This record gives sequence, C-alpha cells and structure tokens, in this order.
Amino acid sequence: MFHGLSAFPLTPTDEDGVDESAVAELVARLDRAGVDSIGALGSTGGYAYLSREQRRRVAQVAVRAAGDTPVLVGIGALRTADVLRHAEDAQRAGAAAVLLAPVSYQPLTDDEVYGLYADVAAELSVPLCVYDNPGTTHVVFSDELHGRIAELPAVGSIKIPATPPEPAQARARVARLRAVLPDRVTIGVSGDPAGAGGLLAGCDAWYSVLGGLWPQVCLAITRAARAGDDDGAHRLSDRLAPLWELFARHGSLRVVSAIAEQAGLIGTPNLPRPLLPLPAEARRHVAAVVEELTPELSEPPGRA
Amino acid sequence: MFHGLSAFPLTPTDEDGVDESAVAELVARLDRAGVDSIGALGSTGGYAYLSREQRRRVAQVAVRAAGDTPVLVGIGALRTADVLRHAEDAQRAGAAAVLLAPVSYQPLTDDEVYGLYADVAAELSVPLCVYDNPGTTHVVFSDELHGRIAELPAVGSIKIPATPPEPAQARARVARLRAVLPDRVTIGVSGDPAGAGGLLAGCDAWYSVLGGLWPQVCLAITRAARAGDDDGAHRLSDRLAPLWELFARHGSLRVVSAIAEQAGLIGTPNLPRPLLPLPAEARRHVAAVVEELTPELSEPPGRA
Repeated sequence: MFHGLSAFPLTPTDEDGVDESAVAELVARLDRAGVDSIGALGSTGGYAYLSREQRRRVAQVAVRAAGDTPVLVGIGALRTADVLRHAEDAQRAGAAAVLLAPVSYQPLTDDEVYGLYADVAAELSVPLCVYDNPGTTHVVFSDELHGRIAELPAVGSIKIPATPPEPAQARARVARLRAVLPDRVTIGVSGDPAGAGGLLAGCDAWYSVLGGLWPQVCLAITRAARAGDDDGAHRLSDRLAPLWELFARHGSLRVVSAIAEQAGLIGTPNLPRPLLPLPAEARRHVAAVVEELTPELSEPPGRA
Repeated sequence: MFHGLSAFPLTPTDEDGVDESAVAELVARLDRAGVDSIGALGSTGGYAYLSREQRRRVAQVAVRAAGDTPVLVGIGALRTADVLRHAEDAQRAGAAAVLLAPVSYQPLTDDEVYGLYADVAAELSVPLCVYDNPGTTHVVFSDELHGRIAELPAVGSIKIPATPPEPAQARARVARLRAVLPDRVTIGVSGDPAGAGGLLAGCDAWYSVLGGLWPQVCLAITRAARAGDDDGAHRLSDRLAPLWELFARHGSLRVVSAIAEQAGLIGTPNLPRPLLPLPAEARRHVAAVVEELTPELSEPPGRA
C-alpha cells in the first residue's frame, strides 16, 4: 500500500471540536478520485492537536468514508504510552497502516527514537510508516538510524522530507537511503514542491498535502513521474509554482485550510488555536492564485 | 515572587504513573532549603509528557508540600484549549503563578504566539511567567514579541534562555530586553551554567534545574550574585563546571534524573518513555563527578 499517491486530508477543527461530516466528505472525494491511499491524521490532519477520543473518532470516520482505499492513520504523540493507545484505536478503526513521527519536547537521542519505534512496532498488527519530518518533530534522522529502525519487521515505508531540487542530487539522496533499507521498505517523498522530483528520483510514493485537497492534479503528476515522463511531471508541478511559494511562506497547512474554506468544503475557523487562519491579505493572495490555477488544471476546487 | 532562586524539581514518572510521594519529598526539601520559589511541572518536571489528571495531582501535591514557598506551575500544551484547562487546575491547586511555554508542532507565527498568551492571560487570576525555551518549543522570541506579550497585565516575568558567557554581552542582552518591558515584569535566566552570569548581568531571578536538586549551592550562587559579589558567584559556579559539561552533553533532565536516582531520592526508571535513562557509561561519569563535587560543596546529595 505504500506506493503511488498518498493523499493527506485536513481535519477541520474549531474550539468546539472536529467537523466529522466534513472529514467524511474530504475523505470520500479522495476515494472517488482514485488516490492510492489516504493519510488520515497526518500533520495536515492535525493529529498532534487532538484528544485521544477525537483521534479515535476521526480514524473511524475516515476508514468508513474511504471505501476500498487503504487508510494510514497517524499515531504520533510525545509519550510512548499514548502512541500505543493511538495505535490500538487506529487498528480497531480499520487502519491499513499507521504513521508514526517521533514527536519531541526534550530533544531525543537516536537510542530514544529507535526505542520508540521498537516499542510500538512490537505491538502492531498492521505495517508502520516512519514519518521523518524534522520541521515539526525536530528529530533529524541519520541514514544509519533509518536503517536500524527499518530492520523492525513492522516497518513498511519511510516518509522523507523534500528531496533536493537538483535531479542528480535527488537521485543520490534516494539511492543513499535505499542502500540501508530492506527491500520490503518503500520510500515516499513529502514536501509537495518536491513531489514530482522525488518520484522521478526513485521514490515509490508521494505523501501529499495538496493531494488531500486537489487529488486530480497530484494523481496526474504521480502517473507521469511513475511512467518516467520527466517533462510531463515537471510541467504539471511547475504550473503549481505559485502555490508552492504560498506553502513556503505560510506553511502548507494554513494554505490548504484557506483553499478548502474558500471552496466551501470546510467552515471557518477550521484550525485549532493557537493556530490562526491566514491574515486577510494572504487569504486574498491564496484566492487569486487558486482562481488563476484552477481553470488551467480543469479541477474545480470544490469537487474531485 | 519572580525574584531570586526559583528551583525546578523533577516529577519522577514511569509507565505506571507519577511517584507522588517522591514529588512531595523533592518539593519539601526545597522549601526547607529556603528557595525563593518552586517551579513545579517545568520542563524538568516533565509537564509535556503528563496527562491532565497527572498534572492536576502533581500541582496539588507540590503546593501542599511547598509550605509557605510560592509555587509556579507549568501549564503549557500544544493546544490553547488544553492550556486553559491546565491553568484552571493549577489555580485551583493553589499555584501562586503559572509558567507558559508556547509548545509547538506546526511552527507558530508571532501572531499565533501572541494570541496564545492573550487568550490565556485573559482567563488568569494569578500572574504568568513567559517561558522562552527555544530548545524545546522551537519558538524564537524577538524582543519585539516579548515586549508585545509583556503588555498583557497578567505577565509578571520572562524566563529567558542562557545569557552569553561574556559579561558585557550578557549585560547588553538583559538591557535590550529590559528596555521593551514594563517595570513590573522581571527577567529570569535559565540554562544553569548561565545562572551566575545572568544574575550578575542584571537578571532578577534564576530559574534553575540544579536548584531543584541541590538548592544550597544554587542559593549561595544566587546570594553572592545578588550582592554584587562577582568573584564569589563565579567561583561557586565554576566549581560546578564538570556538571555543566554533563548537562551540555546529555541534557540537564537526564543528568539530574541520574543524580537524584543515585542519591536515593527517586526510583528507576523515572523518566517517561521514549525518554531513556542515561547509558551505563554516562551514569558512571555522573556518579564520579558528583562524588568529586559534593564534599567540596558540603551538600550531601540526598539531603537539603
């Protein structure tokens, strides 16, 4: 299941709770679009901000709404004991796999990161995707650490941060990591501007934020790249450059939150405080970029 | 209350829960030693890893054990709604003040950090200490942001990271921050190796990890520095250099955890997984440093 386009939808949340019907609809449209898997409760899905009960419910709603599309569920937490509880809830909800980032407060040693994965892997009956996201966890994985963790039989994939923009460097990055992994472990790129380049560099999957909202264009990029059509994949990704710039400036979460809201898919506010919606000027900028992009991509923002 | 030595004790915790009687004894010995305030549920007190119920209980136990010594209680959490719950619990437990770090997962904008403090300050009936700790929260405060937050009437102090080692630079750092703060807001230094230097540079308080375990020597440093005895304060702090080196190498939390355990003050394990005790070799190193230091400081490790 750790191949192709894995789409990560939002979990619209305000101070009163999670909008579960919006979650169901966001997930169902990804299933209809034919993505390869759905990543519920990823960083974009706000897992870190939700209670155990909210996460349990979102996992259930997502699995139900996803039809035949396999669902990965994020189980990260600061404390191993809580990760184990989330893992149990996710598996009971029918998750096809779990996604685990080493969330940190005290900076973690390599042995502590390894120990987290070992403790959790020992309790799992579904495969695990290692979530390497230094921008939120502040854990920097060495390839040696990746290799050590990937020896755990439960590990099925690694979600890596953006590959370098330069194609030869991207290929070298993926090859270096591949060399320390068992064959069963796939590599998936994240950081949406690197989606096309990462796939072309040999990644098996694209773990995508935009794919959670605009699956069609992300599927088109994925198919072109997987077919070895470098030009086609880059052409599509380059058209989205104004969006990638917004992601870099404001964070992808706040940008897709604004797009989804402007498309009428979710209400407002939809991010848990202290996170705030984009300021008015940035929202106007987002709306202008979307308006310019969507006719060209023939993807109405509200449908998929 | 935001003056002098504020001592931050451990909250010994294993997979079965918090050792509340050890918490009570750790706090009571700080009261007996005469520290100026006690910081329960700081980073050293593991607040980020505990459930609401565990934090509520630790706040109650700490306030009860502290006698007449005022207790600051850490209320940080990823989500504003949770911070507000912790604030309510801390106040009900009798906290004299609360300590709030802007814990982050998604990187926070300055407006989001400000919004967090504004939302919480509006609900408080005790003063708040702003906890600026980029090593754990990954939020970098500008002086402009500190000034904006300090305008909130609830703010009584700022706990800053280590001041620079060079005295003139340390004085300049404190003076720059002081210039943007209302008079009622004190500045407290943290990063124990900078305790003496920070106080000598004009900080009003030292928010101290070692003070939570070895209050006598930290009180002696604080008194010397507050009396303007540069040489005396530095001489005492310099004697602790082998300990400061261990803090830098392993993190102060793991080192004080090992010292407290070796002194028989707490059991083992005493840190919540994924945090691990120091490896055996580092533990031997800690024991050797402590053995060499304690006769000279005339502070038996188990008493205060």
